[in-house]
Amino acid sequence: MAGTDAASPFKTAEERAAERSAKRRAVLRAAVRMFNDRGFQAASLDDVAASIGISKRTIYHYLGSKDQVLLECVTTGLDQLLIAAEETRHQPGTGRQRLIQFLRRYAAITMEDFGRCVIRTGEEALAPESRRHFRRLKRGIDQAMRNLIEEAVADGSMAPIDVRLAAFTLAGALNWAARWHDPEGPQSPDQIAVAMVDMLMGGMAPPA
Amino acid sequence: MAGTDAASPFKTAEERAAERSAKRRAVLRAAVRMFNDRGFQAASLDDVAASIGISKRTIYHYLGSKDQVLLECVTTGLDQLLIAAEETRHQPGTGRQRLIQFLRRYAAITMEDFGRCVIRTGEEALAPESRRHFRRLKRGIDQAMRNLIEEAVADGSMAPIDVRLAAFTLAGALNWAARWHDPEGPQSPDQIAVAMVDMLMGGMAPPA
Repeated sequence: MAGTDAASPFKTAEERAAERSAKRRAVLRAAVRMFNDRGFQAASLDDVAASIGISKRTIYHYLGSKDQVLLECVTTGLDQLLIAAEETRHQPGTGRQRLIQFLRRYAAITMEDFGRCVIRTGEEALAPESRRHFRRLKRGIDQAMRNLIEEAVADGSMAPIDVRLAAFTLAGALNWAARWHDPEGPQSPDQIAVAMVDMLMGGMAPPA
Repeated sequence: MAGTDAASPFKTAEERAAERSAKRRAVLRAAVRMFNDRGFQAASLDDVAASIGISKRTIYHYLGSKDQVLLECVTTGLDQLLIAAEETRHQPGTGRQRLIQFLRRYAAITMEDFGRCVIRTGEEALAPESRRHFRRLKRGIDQAMRNLIEEAVADGSMAPIDVRLAAFTLAGALNWAARWHDPEGPQSPDQIAVAMVDMLMGGMAPPA
């Protein structure tokens, strides 16, 4: 147990890996905020480095070039969306209830750092190879959304609908929050998400 | 009538003005398509000029710098949206009917060249002064949308709603079409617009 002794000045392999991973996350978080604030083109890795008191070389060490950093940011956001879709599919309830659950989570993610970056990043900001990867992941999310809509129609909990158009319409409404949502505003992403999804599912009806 | 004689090789002042305006529009149309296809950063005025067989100097002559060209493109798109809002306000019918009319027109515009450019242009692409102008115009559209929603609630044709959130949700759903709509696709912008607005107003209900 000598290596894990609290008094030992030497770190174990596990501790070093955890430390490396924590540093990587900190750099990525600083980068995504800079990209969201200034736009990818205007943000420089020098500024990202300065914002957390490290050198640009350290960023290269942990994450690579500016294009690679951006790709890592959007991949992180898209992974959050894919995980949300995956988790939702295994929930009990009707297809419509699962769709609502996913839409709420989707909306909240687009108001968080990495989700914002996914939406605010034009494909043209990425290098060709990264762009292909980005598109593939985005198609995966679109497909997950369509599957949930199809399942809601199939189990009779939602009326038949143009699935492709519905997926684009729902995604668009929620994605837009990445542009207008103020993280300093009074309502939490979760509160806003619930209100938006209620509007989308319930429509804008005449008074009852 | 000598000056307007069809046989005269000399153009009248009016003809010259019309010709100048037509050339300006042609250059702007070529520019907006290039920006939409490649993204503003990647598109060069050289390519725009080459696409219609003119020189870059001619573009400067008619429209100015690349930033000025982009500002002119987004201003054109935003003007179309403002005109749509203005026209709608003077239509007969209930507030809800007028809102629907505006939303359909709004959706169709975001699928057309200049509207696409408005949505696809991140504010950070513009120089600071142009950006302020762009934001002012966008706030005007947002305000017009909110007014129409408020009027629909006020005349009792729509149930009370969080007006700000409703405006963002509707605009987001429709704006997104600027990203996914394929101008070569089978459905016209007007057809898609009607279907999207039906979904947004009607919601995604359980089967009747």
